[in-house]
Amino acid sequence: MTAIDPAALTADLVRCPSVTPADAGALDILATLLTDAGFHIAWADRGGIRNLFARWGEKGHATTFGFNGHTDVVPIGDEGAWTMPPFGAEVKDGIMYGRGTTDMKSGVAAFVAAAVDFVRNTPPDGAIIIAITGDEEGDAIDGTTALLEHMEHTGEKMDVCLVGEPTCPNTMGEMIKIGRRGSLTAFFTVTGKQGHSAYPHRANNPLPAVARLMDQLASYELDQGTEHFDASTLAVVTIDTGNPATNVIPAECSATVNIRFNDDHSGASLTDWLQREADAVAAAFRVQIDMRVKISGESFITPPGALSNLVSAAVQAETNIVPQLSTTGGTSDARFVKAHCPVVEFGLVGQSMHQVDEHVQVAHIHQLKSIYGRILRDYFA
Amino acid sequence: MTAIDPAALTADLVRCPSVTPADAGALDILATLLTDAGFHIAWADRGGIRNLFARWGEKGHATTFGFNGHTDVVPIGDEGAWTMPPFGAEVKDGIMYGRGTTDMKSGVAAFVAAAVDFVRNTPPDGAIIIAITGDEEGDAIDGTTALLEHMEHTGEKMDVCLVGEPTCPNTMGEMIKIGRRGSLTAFFTVTGKQGHSAYPHRANNPLPAVARLMDQLASYELDQGTEHFDASTLAVVTIDTGNPATNVIPAECSATVNIRFNDDHSGASLTDWLQREADAVAAAFRVQIDMRVKISGESFITPPGALSNLVSAAVQAETNIVPQLSTTGGTSDARFVKAHCPVVEFGLVGQSMHQVDEHVQVAHIHQLKSIYGRILRDYFA
Ligand SMILES: [Zn+2]
Ligand SMILES: [Zn+2]
Repeated sequence: MTAIDPAALTADLVRCPSVTPADAGALDILATLLTDAGFHIAWADRGGIRNLFARWGEKGHATTFGFNGHTDVVPIGDEGAWTMPPFGAEVKDGIMYGRGTTDMKSGVAAFVAAAVDFVRNTPPDGAIIIAITGDEEGDAIDGTTALLEHMEHTGEKMDVCLVGEPTCPNTMGEMIKIGRRGSLTAFFTVTGKQGHSAYPHRANNPLPAVARLMDQLASYELDQGTEHFDASTLAVVTIDTGNPATNVIPAECSATVNIRFNDDHSGASLTDWLQREADAVAAAFRVQIDMRVKISGESFITPPGALSNLVSAAVQAETNIVPQLSTTGGTSDARFVKAHCPVVEFGLVGQSMHQVDEHVQVAHIHQLKSIYGRILRDYFA
Repeated sequence: MTAIDPAALTADLVRCPSVTPADAGALDILATLLTDAGFHIAWADRGGIRNLFARWGEKGHATTFGFNGHTDVVPIGDEGAWTMPPFGAEVKDGIMYGRGTTDMKSGVAAFVAAAVDFVRNTPPDGAIIIAITGDEEGDAIDGTTALLEHMEHTGEKMDVCLVGEPTCPNTMGEMIKIGRRGSLTAFFTVTGKQGHSAYPHRANNPLPAVARLMDQLASYELDQGTEHFDASTLAVVTIDTGNPATNVIPAECSATVNIRFNDDHSGASLTDWLQREADAVAAAFRVQIDMRVKISGESFITPPGALSNLVSAAVQAETNIVPQLSTTGGTSDARFVKAHCPVVEFGLVGQSMHQVDEHVQVAHIHQLKSIYGRILRDYFA
C-alpha cells in the first residue's frame, strides 16, 4: 500500500468546520482510516462531544506507545479578516491556510499517518494507542478526561504518551515540552460601605484595600524558578468598580489575578497564601474580602529521561536541531495524561495558532510525520 | 399690606416642576412678587437658563445686603418610590412634601418673603439684592456666575451676601457655613501593553501600576486640618479595566480620585502633586499614565467676623441654639459669590434633600423667614 499523505489528510480534516463542540465529520475520517489499518476503534463520547479511542495490537501490552491530540478548533473570529477561506485548506506557495492547520489537525494527521504506515510496513511486537478528543479548546471536561476514564474502565494502558500539540515557538524542531506550569485564577470581591466622597469617614471605601492587595500580590516574588521550570508568575488581569459618580464612594470592587506556577507550589498552597494576604488586608482596612479560586491545572513534569531522549533523538535526526526541553506556555491536555503515564509534547511551530489566517508549511507536516514515524521505530526497536 | 406667607410661596414654587434646566414658571412667580414690592428686576438669562436679578433701593449703595439662591431642583428619580406627589407640595402632619421643599425653594421663599415684608414695613437706608438662578443643580456654569457677571457689567454691588441653602445637619439653627472645601477630580488612564497571562514578561501590565498609585494616593495624609477646616480627604472613587479574559493581561486601566481640600491647598498645588506621584509610578513601572484634572471649586472662607456674627445672633435669637460655624460639606454657589463679597450660608435642615419624599417642616419655613427678617433688621440698624 502507498504511504498516507499527511498533508492531504490535514486538508481533509481542516475542511470539517469542527469548532468545539462540533465534530463535523473529522473523527469519522480518522476512524475509517484507522479501522482499515487494523486498529480497534471505540468511542468515548460524553456530554455531546465525540472522542475517538483507537488501538493497534494487543490490549494491555507492556510496550504500548500512545498518541494524544484533538480535532476541535477555536472559532474563526472575524471572517472578513481572513485572506484565505478559514475552512478551505488552500495551499499557496507551499503554505496551507485554515483554522486548525497548526492547532492541531496537522499534528493529528501526522501521527495517524505515521502510525498507520508503521503498523502496515513493520508491525511491531507491542501496541499503539491513538486517543483523539473533540473537546480540548472548550471546557476540556468531556475530552481527554473522558478518553482516559474509558481506558481505565476497559483496562487499556499506555506505557508512554506523546501529545502532538504545536510546541515550537519559531523554528521546527526547537522545543519539546516535558511539563507545564499550573494555572490558578483567584476572583476577589472587596466590600465596604457606600457613601458621599465629601464625607469619606462615614463611608468605608473598598478601593484602597483592593489597591493595597493587588500591589502586594503583584510585587511578591513567588520563587526564582526551579530545576525544570521558569519562575512562577502572577498577573493582575482586571480590577473593576463601575462607579460613574465622582462624588460617590462605591460599596464594592472586584479584582482577578491569574497565577502560572511551577512545582514549588500547588493550587492548595497558593490558595492558602492568597487567603492569608486577603485576610491581612481585610483586617487592616476593615473591609470584607471574599475570594473564589479556580485551579485549571496543577503543574506537572515528566523529568528528562527515556521518553524525552527518544523524542529528542528523533527530532534531531530529522531536523538537525537539538530541541530544548521546556515547561513554558499555557495548559494542555498533557496535564490529564500525566496521571496515566509519562508524557511529553512535540509538534509544529505554533505561531499562527488561534489567529486569523492560521497556516502551516506543508513541508513541516511531512517532516512531523517523519519524526513521529522515527519515534515509533526507535521505541519498538 | 399683610405679610407674605413663606409656606404658601414655597408650595407655589414646588408646584413648578423646575428640574434643571427647566424653570417652569418658578422665577416668574418671584419676579411678580418682587416687582410689586418695588424691586427693580433684570434677567441674566444665559445658555437656556433663566436667572433673576432683583434690587430694592439705590444701585451701588454701600449698605447693600444680598441673598442668593436657586429654584432649580434635581430630578425626582423613581417616581413610584415617592409616597407623596413629587410636585404636589402636599402638607401632612405639619410637613410639606415635594422636590425642592428642602433644597431650596423654602429658602428662596423665606428670604423673598422676609425681604418684601421688610422693605414694605421699614424701608431701609440701603439696598437689598436678590439673585436667584435656575442652574445650581446642573453644571452651574450659566447660573450664579451669569448673575455675578451681569452685576459686574451693570455696576451692581453687594456688601455682604447670604446664600439660603440648607446648612443644618439635624436640628434647625445648628450650623452656619462660612466656607467650603475645594473639590478636585483626577481621571487617570494607565497604558501598558496587552499580552497573555502565561507570558507576563512579553506584556506590560498597567494594573500593578494603578494599584500602586491608588494605594499611595489613598495612604497619603494631605494635612491634619487647618484653623477653620477639617483635614482634606482623598477618595478613590473608581478603578476599571473591563477585561473579561483571565488569560489576558489588559493594555489599559482607568482610575478616578476625588479630593476635598482645605485652604492648605489649591487646585493647582494638588494637580502638581498628583502629576508628580503619577510620573514616579509611571517611571517605576514603565507604563504611560495620562491624567486629566477637573477642579469643581477652590476652597474658600469668610473668616468669622461681622457677617457670621450677624447671622449667628439672629439664629440664636429665633431658635435659642448657638450655631456652629462650619466649612464641611460639598460645594455650593457660595464659591462663586466669594469672589464678589463676604458670603455665608444659612438655611434649613438638609437631611431629605435630593431624596425621595423630600420634605420640610412648615414651622421651619416660618422660622427661617423670621431669621432672615431679623438679619435684615440688624444689618440695616
Ligand atoms: Zn491545541
Ligand atoms: Zn441647593
